[in-house]
Amino acid sequence: MKIQTHTRYFSSPLYLESGRILEPYEIIYETYGKLNEDKSNVVLICHALSGSHHAAGVYPGESKPGWWDGLIGEGKGIDTDKFFVISSNVIGSCFGSTGPMSPDYPSEAPYRLKFPVITIKDMIRAQMHLLSDLGIYRVRAIVGGSMGGMQALQFAVDYPNFADEVIALAATHATRAWTIAFNKVAVEAIRRDPRFKDGNYAKDAFKEEGLDGLAIGRIAGHISFLSPESMDQKFGRDYVSNDGLFELFGRYEVERYMEYNTTNFSKHFDPLSYLYIVKAINTFNLSRGYDSLFDALQRIKAKLHLFSFTSDFLFFPEEMEVIHDMMQHNQQNCTYHAIQSNYGHDAFLVEIHKFEHLIRGILENGESE
Amino acid sequence: MKIQTHTRYFSSPLYLESGRILEPYEIIYETYGKLNEDKSNVVLICHALSGSHHAAGVYPGESKPGWWDGLIGEGKGIDTDKFFVISSNVIGSCFGSTGPMSPDYPSEAPYRLKFPVITIKDMIRAQMHLLSDLGIYRVRAIVGGSMGGMQALQFAVDYPNFADEVIALAATHATRAWTIAFNKVAVEAIRRDPRFKDGNYAKDAFKEEGLDGLAIGRIAGHISFLSPESMDQKFGRDYVSNDGLFELFGRYEVERYMEYNTTNFSKHFDPLSYLYIVKAINTFNLSRGYDSLFDALQRIKAKLHLFSFTSDFLFFPEEMEVIHDMMQHNQQNCTYHAIQSNYGHDAFLVEIHKFEHLIRGILENGESE
Repeated sequence: MKIQTHTRYFSSPLYLESGRILEPYEIIYETYGKLNEDKSNVVLICHALSGSHHAAGVYPGESKPGWWDGLIGEGKGIDTDKFFVISSNVIGSCFGSTGPMSPDYPSEAPYRLKFPVITIKDMIRAQMHLLSDLGIYRVRAIVGGSMGGMQALQFAVDYPNFADEVIALAATHATRAWTIAFNKVAVEAIRRDPRFKDGNYAKDAFKEEGLDGLAIGRIAGHISFLSPESMDQKFGRDYVSNDGLFELFGRYEVERYMEYNTTNFSKHFDPLSYLYIVKAINTFNLSRGYDSLFDALQRIKAKLHLFSFTSDFLFFPEEMEVIHDMMQHNQQNCTYHAIQSNYGHDAFLVEIHKFEHLIRGILENGESE
Repeated sequence: MKIQTHTRYFSSPLYLESGRILEPYEIIYETYGKLNEDKSNVVLICHALSGSHHAAGVYPGESKPGWWDGLIGEGKGIDTDKFFVISSNVIGSCFGSTGPMSPDYPSEAPYRLKFPVITIKDMIRAQMHLLSDLGIYRVRAIVGGSMGGMQALQFAVDYPNFADEVIALAATHATRAWTIAFNKVAVEAIRRDPRFKDGNYAKDAFKEEGLDGLAIGRIAGHISFLSPESMDQKFGRDYVSNDGLFELFGRYEVERYMEYNTTNFSKHFDPLSYLYIVKAINTFNLSRGYDSLFDALQRIKAKLHLFSFTSDFLFFPEEMEVIHDMMQHNQQNCTYHAIQSNYGHDAFLVEIHKFEHLIRGILENGESE
């Protein structure tokens, strides 16, 4: 499968939900597969907090595939032999789209904390500009999990005529205090880290030695991505060394996992981007700008497909059921799948075999059942 | 109700589970009520991670009562008109019992990281020495929640002839990876805080400005003490200021709560003590030293009373049910109460009215049903 990576430059202003303006801005995106003649085979992929435009395939010389490579590719659930898949990096991110470390034009110095707050609405508005620019005015489907699912839902509400099918996994209709609290660990740990310097750190300052604050915040993140049961299965009470149980800093297997993954993460993710994206997640509320959630959902014309995972401890199945119930009540077209899984929130990334056939069905026949 | 506070000094060694020795050591404790003539009215209280010996009553000149004041006092569930209540501060703590900032005798310098790792078994062994010293060789009951519940359970297993009734609330038979992961946030946040100085901070260094690492770790703690539902009820998506939604560091109510409580906490709790107590919680496993959990539980001769809370997201009801099921299977005397509550783990501290009558029944008649 061929990966095409492009960056699109926009000189027109992006009007943000906060009333502020982002101008100019860039969006980096990838495409897989071929656009058909009547442009009717576009599938838009939306990424989560730590994701990027690199959703599928393997870059030359690298070994790690994109974050949803199990789902997107030739013959896979989102079949690139049939569909033209577009995956863009959200604004605010640190992987190529305009974010807090981008130059604050006309200055060449980065925005840093002067970067405006970005919301999920802003992220998808930017993606609409990208697609218009590419001459695409309607897509077959929008698919995303977690923050990507928030984007998919917001697309369905804000742009009712844009997609045939909207597929949201492991998301919610409005971020709850529970999630905001998990994010708060990262916010405080980053903000209080002396090396963060109130956002005035040198570019690439954390390439060698990641920012501790981000690594610490990320531990809380990983807790919320797993579940008590998935941790029992993955780690149990296993100890890294048999001798060390009575050493103060001797480590359980779950501790080793947390240290390893979070320290690595803090070397390649920009802490300001993390703060801005976390803010976008915290402020997510489908009903904002509408009279009520019911009012917002009533706008939806796409077929909406909701997937939750029974062990998701970040966005609980009940939160998706609320949407489903309202749409059922309103006789709108909506399917809901509660996928049995012990993998917690991470299931949307690691248990693809449990829902791949359903997504294939939706994309190819508009049917998941 | 009169509060008596004493410190007991032990020159004999305390043999620790790790094979190390603590010598000498001190235990600070409080008593409420009067010891009767045949010493048959003693109730021992065990405290949790952030607790102390100050379980009930109000000190002269202060306004904040002890942490279980709603349960312990004249005419209350644990009635100090009838019972002689002893509440001691665990070793490893920073409230008066020997801990990592105590002098490493014969030196006058504090142990710091040279302090030996303490386990739940060690904590209760020290309490056994205290009670022996007071001439008390058997108690009416042992009562504790969370880490206090771990102590109560460990008492029941290790000293089968010591108590008539053992009451454990919101605890578990062995700490799961889930809890260890929450604790890991605190461990890493403290360890990586430059002001922690690898444990070589000045005494009282954090009185004015608490240690950020402890405050950050404590946010993760508070998440685990609450639940998604309790946070919905307590905070919802309320915003501290109506203007600030689009400010990067503008705060939701749940964020304000976390900042306020954790920053305060970090001013009065010693970070080394926190690390040592967290380690004791992580290493808790009732079956360690026995062939199996079943084997450990089989030793119990006291009547065991287990209380869990339906919304506890730190120690889930299933974890207490395991104990109850095994004891039922073995025809041992055990009652189990799953208290309906939306308050999460904190319920054992804040929903006392839901179990006070049950504890009264157990203490006064040995019956909770």
